[in-house]
Formats: sequence, structure tokens, C-alpha cells
Amino acid sequence: MSNAFRNIGLFIRNNDPTLVSALTTVIEVLTARKLKFCCNQPLNFLPDVAVHPIDSFVDHCDLTIAVGGDGTMLSAGRALAGSDLPVVGINVGRLGFLADVTLKDLAVQLNNILDGEYRHDQRFMLTASYHKTPLGVAMNDIVVHCHQSMRMIEFETHINGRFLNSQRADGVVIATPTGSTAYAMSAGGPILDVDLNAIVITSVCPHTLSNRPLVIAADSVIDITLSENNTESAMVTCDGQTGQLLNPGESIRISRHDKHVDLLHPVDHDHYSILRAKLEWGRKLTC
Amino acid sequence: MSNAFRNIGLFIRNNDPTLVSALTTVIEVLTARKLKFCCNQPLNFLPDVAVHPIDSFVDHCDLTIAVGGDGTMLSAGRALAGSDLPVVGINVGRLGFLADVTLKDLAVQLNNILDGEYRHDQRFMLTASYHKTPLGVAMNDIVVHCHQSMRMIEFETHINGRFLNSQRADGVVIATPTGSTAYAMSAGGPILDVDLNAIVITSVCPHTLSNRPLVIAADSVIDITLSENNTESAMVTCDGQTGQLLNPGESIRISRHDKHVDLLHPVDHDHYSILRAKLEWGRKLTC
Amino acid sequence: MSNAFRNIGLFIRNNDPTLVSALTTVIEVLTARKLKFCCNQPLNFLPDVAVHPIDSFVDHCDLTIAVGGDGTMLSAGRALAGSDLPVVGINVGRLGFLADVTLKDLAVQLNNILDGEYRHDQRFMLTASYHKTPLGVAMNDIVVHCHQSMRMIEFETHINGRFLNSQRADGVVIATPTGSTAYAMSAGGPILDVDLNAIVITSVCPHTLSNRPLVIAADSVIDITLSENNTESAMVTCDGQTGQLLNPGESIRISRHDKHVDLLHPVDHDHYSILRAKLEWGRKLTC
Amino acid sequence: MSNAFRNIGLFIRNNDPTLVSALTTVIEVLTARKLKFCCNQPLNFLPDVAVHPIDSFVDHCDLTIAVGGDGTMLSAGRALAGSDLPVVGINVGRLGFLADVTLKDLAVQLNNILDGEYRHDQRFMLTASYHKTPLGVAMNDIVVHCHQSMRMIEFETHINGRFLNSQRADGVVIATPTGSTAYAMSAGGPILDVDLNAIVITSVCPHTLSNRPLVIAADSVIDITLSENNTESAMVTCDGQTGQLLNPGESIRISRHDKHVDLLHPVDHDHYSILRAKLEWGRKLTC
Repeated sequence: MSNAFRNIGLFIRNNDPTLVSALTTVIEVLTARKLKFCCNQPLNFLPDVAVHPIDSFVDHCDLTIAVGGDGTMLSAGRALAGSDLPVVGINVGRLGFLADVTLKDLAVQLNNILDGEYRHDQRFMLTASYHKTPLGVAMNDIVVHCHQSMRMIEFETHINGRFLNSQRADGVVIATPTGSTAYAMSAGGPILDVDLNAIVITSVCPHTLSNRPLVIAADSVIDITLSENNTESAMVTCDGQTGQLLNPGESIRISRHDKHVDLLHPVDHDHYSILRAKLEWGRKLTC
Repeated sequence: MSNAFRNIGLFIRNNDPTLVSALTTVIEVLTARKLKFCCNQPLNFLPDVAVHPIDSFVDHCDLTIAVGGDGTMLSAGRALAGSDLPVVGINVGRLGFLADVTLKDLAVQLNNILDGEYRHDQRFMLTASYHKTPLGVAMNDIVVHCHQSMRMIEFETHINGRFLNSQRADGVVIATPTGSTAYAMSAGGPILDVDLNAIVITSVCPHTLSNRPLVIAADSVIDITLSENNTESAMVTCDGQTGQLLNPGESIRISRHDKHVDLLHPVDHDHYSILRAKLEWGRKLTC
Repeated sequence: MSNAFRNIGLFIRNNDPTLVSALTTVIEVLTARKLKFCCNQPLNFLPDVAVHPIDSFVDHCDLTIAVGGDGTMLSAGRALAGSDLPVVGINVGRLGFLADVTLKDLAVQLNNILDGEYRHDQRFMLTASYHKTPLGVAMNDIVVHCHQSMRMIEFETHINGRFLNSQRADGVVIATPTGSTAYAMSAGGPILDVDLNAIVITSVCPHTLSNRPLVIAADSVIDITLSENNTESAMVTCDGQTGQLLNPGESIRISRHDKHVDLLHPVDHDHYSILRAKLEWGRKLTC
Repeated sequence: MSNAFRNIGLFIRNNDPTLVSALTTVIEVLTARKLKFCCNQPLNFLPDVAVHPIDSFVDHCDLTIAVGGDGTMLSAGRALAGSDLPVVGINVGRLGFLADVTLKDLAVQLNNILDGEYRHDQRFMLTASYHKTPLGVAMNDIVVHCHQSMRMIEFETHINGRFLNSQRADGVVIATPTGSTAYAMSAGGPILDVDLNAIVITSVCPHTLSNRPLVIAADSVIDITLSENNTESAMVTCDGQTGQLLNPGESIRISRHDKHVDLLHPVDHDHYSILRAKLEWGRKLTC
């Protein structure tokens, strides 16, 4: 990864009018610096911008700028997995865990990053395979969940081939440190420090009350097997993207992806500060 | 409700071979006491038994004996709601919260109950209405939950017309004391003492971490409104029975049903003892 | 309780300079209305104000105005228990659950209340007795907790003479609805609607993971017995006031006090709105 | 660590009669194998056994056998920290997390281990320092907790010099993977896989409801500073051993100890199996 970024890929999820202001500022910065750029979608307000799908950014770009929010960053991260292309996230809404360049300081912070002044933050991803074929990658989490009838599922978990337990629950969330502050947290999981080399397994509404989130090494191989007793299929999703039906008796295998996502942040980026802001830790109840 | 039971309705959910032993003992007791009985399904091993649907038990019977487990009791309770017919639950598996006559003591305990020696236990039920038409009744709980895409739903809760909150979660469980040890407990809710006149509202995987279960008076009227922001429908279930789709912008109203379910237990029935047994409170970890 | 308040008792906990501004406004309102008033402490900035201990307010006053925060309200509530004297709470800090007249609207809201425009809010209290002698009263909670060595205590709980369970924990919190948003909530308890006729029993750091908060009827009698196995005493506190040592083998009995506390609120008082504000329910994490 | 164990140190905490049976079997095995042994306490029933304090085991022994339970193992572990002496744990009560040789198979399992057939299990420890002087070591956890008045403490946490948060709580537990199934779990913490290179920080009854356990790398340096606002001291304990008062404004520094504890287990030792047994995961509630 070179510090000299010359070709920039802009990534957006929707051609949403709320993005125009941020995109305009970004493009002003890039233009002033005489950098080339393309976008993954045609821009209404700037029809001349070259359009390339994000899968081909690796051929055209040395930096991706994702404009939107944390969801946009997850999409970019999955699409760029394995490309070594770093990503900067511009947040058009409130502060995000991943997209932490905010509108207020956009021009200054982007210029600093393009000057090579940034904080590099490498995140690992998870991959799921089903009958030995890959299902998808996830920056946040891979979830096996009941669906349709909304009855609990019964499943077995093995870690590195060792039997952990058999349980009934609404589902189970396998999360990276990045995902530990997303759905896993709503399900009762702990926060994993963002660069911790670990994965957290959290059951969703477990039937057995002594069930607890389990934190394991990031290089573990996790097999979730839907018990034959289930009368219906379960659903497997990667970062919440609708995915694969898992039939009774079938297994899904989850492990660390062999590629990382490279995020670039402003130099004053502080993950604990974002935790405090987003989890309202700063505010205290009066006695 | 008279103590002199003369006509007994047997209720089973499936013609399951695991029920034959219990049913045989029950029928021996009834026959020895020269009581009349019918069943809601034809019995393979005793084809002469009269068959009546449970909805008509009120015309034929003065006592219902449900044979199966807690799920069978929930079915019986919903079907008999408003009939004043008391129910005894025979548990063919392990001890249940509701079906607490176990195989071991079946003949003795059933004879005692038929002698008028029992503990009467009245449980209230919930009812849900949708556009002012009733959706169903529930002994345990009424649940509004995301489904299909498995994305969080956004909804507002009003209690007696007063706005409680707007939140995002996988769903919300409105449970009776009976249901407080079922799905609501898996979702993190407290135990309501079985005769407490209260309802507990528990969010499933709430996005806001300071969300907590709320216990309110049993005569409250609860409106759950699916926010217009949702892009998909939610599902409403009563005691886990697949039910009604709730579209964005629509509301479901939940309130106490005007009829109770009358359970009969052996005289030594003790709900705290069942809690200790089922929640493994008796067992302690060594230090 | 008459609407025509003529004699006002001002209650403060400490002669704290942060209270002067609020007290000055309160006294201006009272003076303008030609009402008589006294205070439980001499006021430096207004030495002529009559001083009476709060215990004798019932002889001098028909309304108490507590100036401080929720802690001041708890002190006033305990001191006035059984007097039928209503209390208004002025909050000099941020919004309180109990003291909800804030500085911003102090003169207007106080005048309205003195005009008889208020919302009456009756709260029940708990009382603890030890060897049949009363230990104290509590608006929030009565807590039995390990102390000094900070080892878990082992104790048995009976409700209305029925054995609930034996457990090891750091302690146990018996809370009113008022107290359900205080220490009981930090220990994992649910919120009880403020006028619900119920008590919640919540263990603090229970050893058995399937232990759950239990909500019971407000007229229950709860006995907590410190097991003979403990090698040290436990501490019993009422609303956090240091209290009574409980020796191994001894019991504490907790029940509803026979007197209420009468709070007066501005007419637009809405407990759910306070919950939303204090628990940050209004704020949502972005996805 | 050699496989040829010749000199065995027996470690017990108390001269407890319940240990005699296990000690007798252990000594029979050692005698049959013609191994030398000593004990840290004089044995009533075998007065000829040499007595050496555990601190000097390193000079006399090449294996420690701790007889008692997990508490005995913690004591042995702390005493042997830095000695490279491996420890086998004999459990005279129910199965332990650490002491997993049970009475039932004692002779067989001990002989196997002495034959060199064992599973080696290295656990890291924590150390606390106060004003740069060491306070103690812990296999399970280091806890900072309010005491005496039992009021919440206010404290700040820094990790590797970076500010994490300021909070009010009853206390905070810093636990190793070994300790994650002890007090940290009662306080709501996750399970850390036993060989995970991580530490979990769990608040006890935190005031801020969005507080969550945080899992960080094992080589982190954690500073807990008692806020100047506190009116009383807090207590610091290592593995529950009463320790050091921490005054308002003072800090405690917690980090990984530079020495490990070496446990030896029977070859079929499986930590997940112990988790299932001790957390009752095998048992399921019936629906």
C-alpha cells in the first residue's frame, strides 16, 4: 500500500440525494489535487465521472472512498476483500464505528489522508462455507437463525473439531471484533477490542439460561450443524445479507478469511472515543 | 366448577405412540371410577372411545385431562378459553411448568384430583386484535418479530394510549406470568410470580443497550405500531402459532383476555419447587 | 390532603451553596403568595427562616418542598413516611426520577402546584424488621449484601413462608417500583411500572447463572436468611443507608410499609418521558 | 519440565478430615512407585511425612499435587508462580474447572500422569501494582470493589495509556481466561476460551446500562484510577484475597504476570466437557 494515492474509486450504495453534498466536497478535494477518480455508479449531478464496478477498482484505483455510513463500509469491505485496496469511510449521518470522517471536517481530514497522514487499521473478515463451497464473507458477523415459523432451532457447535455444545436458541452470531458492536452486542455479547485476534460466538435468545458468549481465537474453525430434530430449515446470513438455507442435518463452516480489509482513518482516530460516543458512556444518570 | 367430575374430555395434540402408556393409565382410572369420557381424536388402541372436538368439550365434559406436556396444555388452554372447563395436565416427558402430573404418580394423583383434592390455579390470557378484529388468544405470550429478511424492525409502543418508546429490535414479547418462564425469559425477561396481576414487555435483541424489560399492570392495553420506516412486514404470533402479518404503519393491540384458564394441580403442587427443578437452581457450582 | 397549602416545609440535606439559587426562587414564590415556611436547617443567606426538624413538619406544614435531587427526595420520603404530608421535588441538577421540577421552569411550575394544579403520585415503601424490631423504611430498596471480605454470601429466600431458593451471590436487592430504576436496575432487574403493585427481587452477581429477577405481589412478606455456612456477617441497608449487620443464621423480614409517600408533580409529568430521557432511549445508534 | 517426576510436593490448604481419603490414595500411589514426597502441612494421620512450605517446593520437588478443589489450585498456582513446577489438581468435591482428577479415578489417573501421560495446560496470571510496588498475583482475577459503605465507586480505566471510560459501578473485575468462569461470569462477563491470549474487563453492577464487558489483548496494561470524587477508599483483591485499600485519586496497574502456571491434566481432559458439566449445558428445559 503506497502513500501516494493517484487513482481514487468512489463507492456508494445508492444514488441517494443525501450523498450529493458529501460527494461534491470529496470531488472538489480530488479535483483540486488533480487526482483521477471513478465511481461505482453513474452520478446524476456529475455525469462525466467514469463508472467502474467496485470489483474492478483494484485495476483502476489505489484508494477507495466509501460515502454513506457503516453499512456502506461493510459493502465496500466485502467487495474489496483480498484486493489490498485501502478504504476511507465518509459518514453522511452520525459518527460511525467504521466510517469516521464526518461532514464537518471532511475537506481537511480527506486532504490529510491524501497527504499520507492517516491511521492504518486492518480488520479481519470471516468466511462461511457450505458443503465445501464458499457462501460469502463478512466483516461483522455470520448468523445462523430460525426464520419463517420463528421457532427455535436446535444446533450443535464444534470448534476445531471439538464438540462445544448442543443447544436450542433463536440463532447464533459468529462475530469479528468489528462485528462485536453490531448484532452480537444486541444479543448480549461483549465488546472485543478492535484489533484483538479473536471471534465471539453469541447465542440469540438461548433456551438454556446458563449459556454465555464464548470468545475464541480468530484462527478457529467453527462448525454449526443444524440438528436432524429440526422440522424446518435455518437461514445463514453474512453481514445481514440474505443467504443460504441450512437444512436439518447440514452444517456450515465458519473461519477467518485469508484476506483483510484495510481501513484508513484520520490520525486522531480513537476507537475508545467512538465507543464512548456511540454507547453514550459519557452520559451518566444522576443519582 | 363442581368438584364432582362425571364427564371427562381427554385432549391430545397428536396420536403419538409415546402417549399410549399415559392414556391407558388415565383410562383405567376413569373406568374404575365409572366415569364417562371422550377424546378429541380417535384412539387407535381403544377405538370405541367417543370423539368430540375440544371446542365442544364444554357441552360434553366437566373436566379436561390434557396428556402430553406444556405445549399440549397451551393448546388446551387456548381452545377452552372462556369455557370454565378446568384442565389437568399429564406430563409424559419431564416435569412441566403447566402439566405437572407425572407418569410416576399418575394413578394416585389423578384419583386424588377426581376425589376433589386438588389445588386450583387460575391463569389469565392475552388477546391480540388487529384492525379491531381478534387475532387470537395466548396463555404464554404474543410476539411481534421480524421475519424473512431477519432485519430489525422499528416499532412504537403505547401503554393505555401513552407513548412508551420507539425502538429497533428483532421483536418484542408481551408475556403473562405463565409465559414469563418461556420465550420472554430467553429474551432476558424476569420471572413474574405465577399469580401476579401483571404483564411483562421484553424486547428481543434491542438495538439500544439501555432497553430493559418493563412490567405493567395486567389490565393495561398495549399498542405495538410497526413504523412506516420498515421496508418489510413483521409477524405476530400467539403462543408461537404462526399468525398475522403486520405491515409498516399498522398496529396490533394486546390486552388481557376476559376469560381465564382454570388449571387443577395435585394438592402438593408448588410453583417455586417447579422453578427450582426446571431452572436447575438446586445445583450449585463448586468454587 | 388539602389543595390549599398555607404552611410549607423546605427540606434540604446539606447547606450546599449549589442550592441557594433554587431556594431563593422557591422563597420568592412563597413570599409573593404570602405563605408561611420553615426549613429543616438554618439558611445562611436568610437567617430569619424558622427551623424545624423534618420529623416535626407534620405539626407545622401541609406541604414539603424538597430541594436537591432524587437522593433528597428519598430522605424526605423516609422521614415523612406515615405523615400524609405531600412532597414536591425541586431538582437542582439534571432531571430526576422523583424530583422533577427543574430550575428552568421552577417559578411557573411551583406556582401551578400551589394553585392546586398538580399530578398526585402515591408510592409505596418497604420496611425491614430484624428480630421483630423495625430496622428502617425504604422508598427504593432494601439490600442484603456481603461486605468487608467481599466474599459471596449464601442465603435462603422465603416468600409468604414458602421456600423460594437457596443461593450464593454478592447480595440481593428487594425493590419497589420506585427503586426498580435504581440499584436493582444496575443488578439486572426489570423496570416496574411506577404504579404497579409489585416488588422485584434481584440477585447481585448470582453464582447460579439461571438465577433471574422475580417480580411478586407488593403485599408479599419476604424473609432472607443468611445461611449458617457463612463465616461472616452480611450488611442490610435501606435506600443505601448503612444499617444492620446480619449474622449467619439470622433473618431479615421485608414487607410493604403501611404508609405511602405522596409526591406532587407538575400536571404534565409523564413517567415514561422521564424513563426515555434518563435511559437515553431517545438516542439510537446508527447502523 | 521433565516427565520423570521423582519428588512430589503435596499441597493442601487446611488439615481438613475430608482430605484424608484422597491423600491416602495419593500417598499409596506415590509409595508404590517409590517416589519421595513432602507436604506443606504436617499430616495427622501420617506424621512422618516431611514438611516444607510451598514456597520452597521448587527446591525439593519436580511436581506439585494439590488436593482439595479449585480454590486449592488457585492458592497453589499463586504460590508457585514463576517456579516452573507443574501442578496436578485432585478434586475431593465435585468436578472443578482446574482440579479435574476426581476421587473415582484417582489412582488410575494419577499413575497415568506419573507415567508421563498427561495433557499440559499453561495458564497466564495477572499481577497488580500499586505505586509501582507489586500487590500480588492472580490466576482468576483482580477486582477493585467498593466496600464498607457499599456505595458505588467512580473510577477511570486506561488501557495501554489510552482513556477507555469513566464510570460508576460497584466494582470492576479484570479476569484471565481461567477467571472468566469465576466471578467475572457472575458479573455478566463472557467465557474466554481457556487458552485465548486475552483479558476481560467486566463492570459489577454498572450505573450506565450500555456498559459492556470488554475483551482486550493479554499483554495490555490496565490502569484503574479511583476518582477524586469518591468519599471513601475502594478495595483491591487478587483471586478474592483481601488486599489493598485504594484511596480516592490513586491508581492500580494490572498486567500479565511474566510467569505461567503449568497444569497437568489426564490425557482425556476436555475443557468444553467441563464447561458443559459445570454450567449444566447438557440439561435442557422441556418446552
